[in-house]
Amino acid sequence: MVSDREQAVFEAGIKLGALYHQWVGTPISRATAASVEAAIEAAVGLQPYVTAITVRLNRDLMTANPFGYSELRGEMFAVTITTEYGGARCVADLHYTGEYPLMSIRSVDEAP
Amino acid sequence: MVSDREQAVFEAGIKLGALYHQWVGTPISRATAASVEAAIEAAVGLQPYVTAITVRLNRDLMTANPFGYSELRGEMFAVTITTEYGGARCVADLHYTGEYPLMSIRSVDEAP
Amino acid sequence: MVSDREQAVFEAGIKLGALYHQWVGTPISRATAASVEAAIEAAVGLQPYVTAITVRLNRDLMTANPFGYSELRGEMFAVTITTEYGGARCVADLHYTGEYPLMSIRSVDEAP
Amino acid sequence: MVSDREQAVFEAGIKLGALYHQWVGTPISRATAASVEAAIEAAVGLQPYVTAITVRLNRDLMTANPFGYSELRGEMFAVTITTEYGGARCVADLHYTGEYPLMSIRSVDEAP
Repeated sequence: MVSDREQAVFEAGIKLGALYHQWVGTPISRATAASVEAAIEAAVGLQPYVTAITVRLNRDLMTANPFGYSELRGEMFAVTITTEYGGARCVADLHYTGEYPLMSIRSVDEAP
Repeated sequence: MVSDREQAVFEAGIKLGALYHQWVGTPISRATAASVEAAIEAAVGLQPYVTAITVRLNRDLMTANPFGYSELRGEMFAVTITTEYGGARCVADLHYTGEYPLMSIRSVDEAP
Repeated sequence: MVSDREQAVFEAGIKLGALYHQWVGTPISRATAASVEAAIEAAVGLQPYVTAITVRLNRDLMTANPFGYSELRGEMFAVTITTEYGGARCVADLHYTGEYPLMSIRSVDEAP
Repeated sequence: MVSDREQAVFEAGIKLGALYHQWVGTPISRATAASVEAAIEAAVGLQPYVTAITVRLNRDLMTANPFGYSELRGEMFAVTITTEYGGARCVADLHYTGEYPLMSIRSVDEAP
């Protein structure tokens, strides 16, 4: 038996893992970061059980390579996602710890 | 408060979402499918809390394009993954329902 | 010896191959397609020697899966890219032939 | 008019751009690098006009994150690819300059 809480958590994990590996490697700069943030939010928002998603990419890490741009890396992501399944709601995030782009469950509670 | 069961489920979701979006689009054929299966298993097996992973890619769907190969699509995946966190173990899978490549929790129980 | 024409062509090939494999698999729908088109154009426009890029994703192929969205596939792409290197300019494209998402050189001539 | 030389160069560019963006972000370690190298070589070898491909991933850069593995980044790639089109052959590579993972045409000549 799987609870609604577990299912909501599972769905949040899927979306965080998916977006990381879909988008890492994208050419990016401070001038284009907003466009990529918007596209990620739009894409993830389509997926099942997602009720909210915010993506912020750290411009401070977008140092220019010899050709004047950067590449989206895991440590640039600050993402918070909310999923709801049945009576449960999960809030999870992806943030850089200083050593690792970590995905964490922030809360699991009853859906409003 | 997040339980070990919920954490194990979250980790399984992350890995399934990640592998799907990392590998979809890879050029593939019946002759090279085993090589890609091995690489996916090796890669996912490195990630935290994964204790088992099997990947089988459906050769029947690898119909040749005009250049004689195919491309890895979601419906080709048959994946089963086991994660363990604290006292809990989750088995989850990715399989094609006939309409959708679905990620599902198969079981959550005590770690052995 | 490599000519400017050859170098311009090489750069166009790199960008078309890159964008295809970066973005295939992205969750997409008719409502979000413009956002993804904008992000791809912004990203590719950062890369060296690119002077123009237009991306159009075929909404007619975005049929909804059971969860109401689609996934970006190779046959949805209609891309035209211009690269310039030294005295040469290349226009290349990615379009679906009906059987295959083909990348082609449209013209190579002198840069204006 | 596009020459065979230009077409061979274009095809090499496509494959280098494609493999970079397909595989960047893959979980990797010194123990699994050979498996990923083999899968990339198998995948790229399927694509049109490719006659040879060697992939070597730099183990020295695979420093362990807190969970004991690494992630495939652009600077780890050392790739040499040969394409042939009509009467022309192109050898191109992807290697890290110390600042940038650069894709270069090494030679274009007559196919043997």
